[in-house]
Amino acid sequence: MNKVYAFAFSILLVFLIPQKKNKVIFFGDSITQAGVQPGGYITRIDSLCKSENKQNEFEFTGAGISGNKVYDLYLRMEEDVISKKPDLVLVYIGVNDVWHKRSSGTGTDPDKFEKFYQAIINKIKATGSKIILCTPAAIGERTDFSNDQDGDLNHYSNLIRGIARKNNLTLVDLRKIFLDYNLKNNIENKDRGILTTDRVHLNAAGNQLVAGEMWKEIKELLAISR
Amino acid sequence: MNKVYAFAFSILLVFLIPQKKNKVIFFGDSITQAGVQPGGYITRIDSLCKSENKQNEFEFTGAGISGNKVYDLYLRMEEDVISKKPDLVLVYIGVNDVWHKRSSGTGTDPDKFEKFYQAIINKIKATGSKIILCTPAAIGERTDFSNDQDGDLNHYSNLIRGIARKNNLTLVDLRKIFLDYNLKNNIENKDRGILTTDRVHLNAAGNQLVAGEMWKEIKELLAISR
Amino acid sequence: MNKVYAFAFSILLVFLIPQKKNKVIFFGDSITQAGVQPGGYITRIDSLCKSENKQNEFEFTGAGISGNKVYDLYLRMEEDVISKKPDLVLVYIGVNDVWHKRSSGTGTDPDKFEKFYQAIINKIKATGSKIILCTPAAIGERTDFSNDQDGDLNHYSNLIRGIARKNNLTLVDLRKIFLDYNLKNNIENKDRGILTTDRVHLNAAGNQLVAGEMWKEIKELLAISR
Amino acid sequence: MNKVYAFAFSILLVFLIPQKKNKVIFFGDSITQAGVQPGGYITRIDSLCKSENKQNEFEFTGAGISGNKVYDLYLRMEEDVISKKPDLVLVYIGVNDVWHKRSSGTGTDPDKFEKFYQAIINKIKATGSKIILCTPAAIGERTDFSNDQDGDLNHYSNLIRGIARKNNLTLVDLRKIFLDYNLKNNIENKDRGILTTDRVHLNAAGNQLVAGEMWKEIKELLAISR
Repeated sequence: MNKVYAFAFSILLVFLIPQKKNKVIFFGDSITQAGVQPGGYITRIDSLCKSENKQNEFEFTGAGISGNKVYDLYLRMEEDVISKKPDLVLVYIGVNDVWHKRSSGTGTDPDKFEKFYQAIINKIKATGSKIILCTPAAIGERTDFSNDQDGDLNHYSNLIRGIARKNNLTLVDLRKIFLDYNLKNNIENKDRGILTTDRVHLNAAGNQLVAGEMWKEIKELLAISR
Repeated sequence: MNKVYAFAFSILLVFLIPQKKNKVIFFGDSITQAGVQPGGYITRIDSLCKSENKQNEFEFTGAGISGNKVYDLYLRMEEDVISKKPDLVLVYIGVNDVWHKRSSGTGTDPDKFEKFYQAIINKIKATGSKIILCTPAAIGERTDFSNDQDGDLNHYSNLIRGIARKNNLTLVDLRKIFLDYNLKNNIENKDRGILTTDRVHLNAAGNQLVAGEMWKEIKELLAISR
Repeated sequence: MNKVYAFAFSILLVFLIPQKKNKVIFFGDSITQAGVQPGGYITRIDSLCKSENKQNEFEFTGAGISGNKVYDLYLRMEEDVISKKPDLVLVYIGVNDVWHKRSSGTGTDPDKFEKFYQAIINKIKATGSKIILCTPAAIGERTDFSNDQDGDLNHYSNLIRGIARKNNLTLVDLRKIFLDYNLKNNIENKDRGILTTDRVHLNAAGNQLVAGEMWKEIKELLAISR
Repeated sequence: MNKVYAFAFSILLVFLIPQKKNKVIFFGDSITQAGVQPGGYITRIDSLCKSENKQNEFEFTGAGISGNKVYDLYLRMEEDVISKKPDLVLVYIGVNDVWHKRSSGTGTDPDKFEKFYQAIINKIKATGSKIILCTPAAIGERTDFSNDQDGDLNHYSNLIRGIARKNNLTLVDLRKIFLDYNLKNNIENKDRGILTTDRVHLNAAGNQLVAGEMWKEIKELLAISR
């Protein structure tokens, strides 16, 4: 009889005691800043979450600032991420580190990109939070690698892949995901308009693609971890 | 009997009257400047020509100057090319137009690249000379398009392919030839040492590859044209 | 008596025979392209000319195209300048040769700037036309040389001053004229709004200042030359 | 009599109790990395100190790393500066933040330069250490502001002057000091060889000038502070 009571009590507890939600922070640049807007990728992840009735398990927070490069994340991470005690941080950075080389002469050298990226990971790890890394999706959507910064963006994506491997971290390889999608859907080899509005920032399809891919990994990682 | 004499006389003429050689000018940058050195691609074309016993049919001249971009060719073409009355000009330019964007902020905009390239073609055409175009081979030999200027170099190679098509000109697509060669021979994805010494300038294998590909097209074009 | 008739006849001729106007062409970039608009510096020179009742002596033509650098002038000079048989050409170029280094990585190296500039002068000189050179006025109006490309713009202005000296040509030193004006009138050390709208393109005061300085030299040079 | 004993005892203490030396750390880039070499500016400060018989009062440590920009200092300041418990930190940074815009497209935007600079100051201040700031001396020594990055370097020097003012910190204005020296000693308007070997790195005269100016401020600041 005691066992039966204990079981019933447990069931009751699940409903009565407020479950601690997994706090997920998206840490990045303008793409992430736009992600919390209606139609943005974070908003869409929230919708996916609700559609699967998991809204009690997750809480999503955007921490994206326009123009940010890897060292900008490092500078503000205490205030914008660590202090919020996340369970999971998705780091989605790298476009400006490459892009600004051409647009303003203020990109990031590859060795320093790796150094700051690793420093960010170390600080998050030290808090006990999980981490997911992302490669920068695109600066131009042409599929024959003739977008003018494709070479550099591929290089920095390789760096992030290496960092993920070395740190044994989950990677959402948006660079690859976007290319695969464009190879199927961008038959005319256009430089924008398939997943981005302007070669960089996400349109509705882009936000939906990113949301789906991230959501998959978020669920898996936090399921494993509990 | 008269016919026999006439025939004998003709045969005699071929040996006695000096045949006018096809004057071939290679018009380009430092890669072409190095091409006339021992082991250079022009020197190797000359050797190929001799090995096929065609030394009486061709005369090869290098007109390469280090650091040249498309507009530098335009500025000096009267003096260095037109005045020499070539039968064939190989235009091999584009590396610096892309490279110098990053190294010194003095590359060439794509629309101007096309404009000057077309102006060069028009001037050569007006002399009656044949023309062969080449795409720029490489700024880095990695095969996964992660050399930092691959995107831009692919873009300018596309521009040259378009110019060749539009003007109905023979193209030696060195960009494609080098990539194909590297996909087979650069298994470790190194950025230099397969066909170049320093990501850009040709080593022995590079010079030989370029020589072979150009020689093939030179023979074909001038055979047709006579 | 014969002398009197001859004199009267001469006087008559001046009024009856249409005087050949001095054809003045302004050869440059977007600043010159805007110069022919209402309020533009060429329009203002035309007004100054009329106010001095010299409209029968001068004819002003703008040949400015946005984004042009020194080599762009060289490419189009036959069609846009030489073919129009000018009596005087004002060359006003250099802003984009410096500016585009930062904005798009496609500026002009100093040695090539000089080379193309000299080639332009040689071609104009060969037609018998007079030439006036101008230094590029400004990329930013701060007077403590803290506009980010001041160093380079000063350097290219020095190059033009040297070219003028070497070729014994009149120089309208707009760089110096603008700085002197700003030292008096830009007390707050603002980077725009005194003589430019956007650090580069001329506002009303800028157009008027340029017009006045150029008009002075145009009159002097063409007066001497007749 | 007690007073006499007390005085004698005090005198004795000065000689017997090891005086805590003022730990001075020089925090910067390759100029500071070279500063600890024989003939380097830090070595010369040490000599000046000894020549004034103050070697028991000061201890000098170099913390310069080649290629460093303001954000590199921020990344490594815990380990290289804070952990060493300095009494005074001289921050001498900024050349690469400007220079690398042109040489590799990886300079620092002015707003971020200020942000990281302020963050460094805040962290040092929090330890109770004194701080001296320096402006970047030169990228080229021509005195007519025609070194190609003079504008930008003046701009960043202005930013540092503003930061010093706002934080009420001592400034060694090397930019101004070098210009004043060159105006007197660089009559031929050369771009190197007066105070630098290569437009940026210090020669013997440059190291001596920097040493003298810094030593003056170091003494004054630490004298006041005790």
